[in-house]
Amino acid sequence: MPQDVLFSIPFEAPISPYLDQARSRHLDWVRARGLIRTDAGLRQYTSWDLPEAVGRTYPHASADDQYMLMNWFSLAFLIDDDCDDDGDDDPDAAPERPDRVAEIARELITIPFREPGTPPDLVSPITLAWSEVWASMSDGTSVTWQNRFAANWARFLASHASELRLSASPTVPALDSYRVMRRNTAGIPHSLDAIERSRRFEVPAQIQAHPLMRRLREAATDTIAYINDIQSPGRQGRRVASHNLVVVLRARLDCSYDTALREATRMTYEQLDTFMTLQAYMPQICGELGLGTTERTAVEMSVEGMRNWIRGYYDWGLRSGPYTAPDAPPDEPEHGYAEDAQHPATVHLRTR
Amino acid sequence: MPQDVLFSIPFEAPISPYLDQARSRHLDWVRARGLIRTDAGLRQYTSWDLPEAVGRTYPHASADDQYMLMNWFSLAFLIDDDCDDDGDDDPDAAPERPDRVAEIARELITIPFREPGTPPDLVSPITLAWSEVWASMSDGTSVTWQNRFAANWARFLASHASELRLSASPTVPALDSYRVMRRNTAGIPHSLDAIERSRRFEVPAQIQAHPLMRRLREAATDTIAYINDIQSPGRQGRRVASHNLVVVLRARLDCSYDTALREATRMTYEQLDTFMTLQAYMPQICGELGLGTTERTAVEMSVEGMRNWIRGYYDWGLRSGPYTAPDAPPDEPEHGYAEDAQHPATVHLRTR
Repeated sequence: MPQDVLFSIPFEAPISPYLDQARSRHLDWVRARGLIRTDAGLRQYTSWDLPEAVGRTYPHASADDQYMLMNWFSLAFLIDDDCDDDGDDDPDAAPERPDRVAEIARELITIPFREPGTPPDLVSPITLAWSEVWASMSDGTSVTWQNRFAANWARFLASHASELRLSASPTVPALDSYRVMRRNTAGIPHSLDAIERSRRFEVPAQIQAHPLMRRLREAATDTIAYINDIQSPGRQGRRVASHNLVVVLRARLDCSYDTALREATRMTYEQLDTFMTLQAYMPQICGELGLGTTERTAVEMSVEGMRNWIRGYYDWGLRSGPYTAPDAPPDEPEHGYAEDAQHPATVHLRTR
Repeated sequence: MPQDVLFSIPFEAPISPYLDQARSRHLDWVRARGLIRTDAGLRQYTSWDLPEAVGRTYPHASADDQYMLMNWFSLAFLIDDDCDDDGDDDPDAAPERPDRVAEIARELITIPFREPGTPPDLVSPITLAWSEVWASMSDGTSVTWQNRFAANWARFLASHASELRLSASPTVPALDSYRVMRRNTAGIPHSLDAIERSRRFEVPAQIQAHPLMRRLREAATDTIAYINDIQSPGRQGRRVASHNLVVVLRARLDCSYDTALREATRMTYEQLDTFMTLQAYMPQICGELGLGTTERTAVEMSVEGMRNWIRGYYDWGLRSGPYTAPDAPPDEPEHGYAEDAQHPATVHLRTR
């Protein structure tokens, strides 16, 4: 199984001291808000341990912000479940689920653009939950940050809905269009924006708009998305099986699974190397733009936050994650990966 | 009638040399796209002369961009009509119209966040039209600009849908909350963002995020919105009658219509004075931030564009606009304003 691909990431990441406390509050919250309604659903959700992902990717958030970030983070994973109300029991309703997800996604996109305190138009556990979380998340942030976060959040939700619609199509996308699409479906850009909120700082607007910062964020996004793809090809989830770097490479290069996996691994390191190179240039750019100490510190905290995100999400994926049992790679007989003894707790990440 | 309130605006604005040519193309477009389907609707639409508003507020756009901007500008005025398909003939369907407008608004909000070329999820003349226009409008713009424009566009559309829902409520809002709400319902912030697209330049991100630029834009927005309110109180349209500065002042100050009108006029000049004062500081801020010549020119063009917007929209409102016959101010007998001979073509602006 593909989880024998271990990456050598040249930095460590801490974990929040508030993880256990915030996890407990968060699990109460998802139950109280009706986001998960069955014991079986709660067991599955608890096994993913999303709170640990938050504790690792935003290690410096306060206890209250850990809780808020866990509540927000869960929404991207629970949107499909929230739209499943009738689907399981009523086969006739199933074909409408992508429409329902798209409808809910448009409401979730709109919420950050309403005046604070406006109730959602489409009332559902997940839209009520996001209204509540956004009020806390946006508190104290600038309009500039809100524009950026809300736009990236919108791109993720819109692409998620599109991806779900594609699930009936067997077509494997072209490599270039897959790479562009993956930047949105992985849900990383808005997660990188949330780094600033997690420590109550903001990256200066001219740095955020700088081509080198944009490329740095893309490199971080691609690194995380490709690692996720490599850790979880052929997963038996609801998502599009062809929406995976290894699957795309295999089809487009017309090669074996192992060759595609090697090429995907090489591409991941290429992005990680780009990230490492560009991050070292950020102080120079701060100097060229004449930034003061506070602004330079904000840029440093942002870069540190991206490192924590890359490493923290990888560490979480090795230990936990939405799939507790590995799936077979597509169209490939199992061939011994499952015997891999190095990672007793390896699991498949669910693509966000 | 209130249109005898003439404002003394201390700057002029030019008009596009391509107005007639672009207007002709635009009128063909609204027909071809099915945005207006009846001869009566087309006569009414033509009488508003929205193309003139575009020719005055974006006077420096190329001929093709004039046409694109007219097509975009029309959408905010046509969204309600596009949702009227069944409402006029079927009284039972009427209560659902605000829901339909809100649904279409969420789709229009989502379109700029999809990958270019993605067809709309909710297919309607106006969603197809906006997909087409956005592809042209976003072409060549930075992601930073797209985030800003799309966020402001979203705030306008979300507030428009909320405003329509309020139409059943007779409650007059508090003055402070009205002023905040009006900044979104007037649709000015994204229209100011479009200034940059109209001349193919962009304001540097650090200037856009600067508190003084933010206040300058608010002053321009408030000036335009308040002039619009003063030119069109008691309008017999579909919008909320209580959603007007003069009406809010009259209720909240418990005063006569004339007193409320005088106070609204004073408030308008207060915003215009703020705009005039702050715009004079922009070169100093550019200096403090160490901007180069190209960036300073971009800031100057942005400020000039705001002047053109204030003056151009005012000039258009005096000559044209959506209402061809003046309405009576609410709860006030007609008292001779209608005899005002200075403005033979005075009409009511429809609030956008």
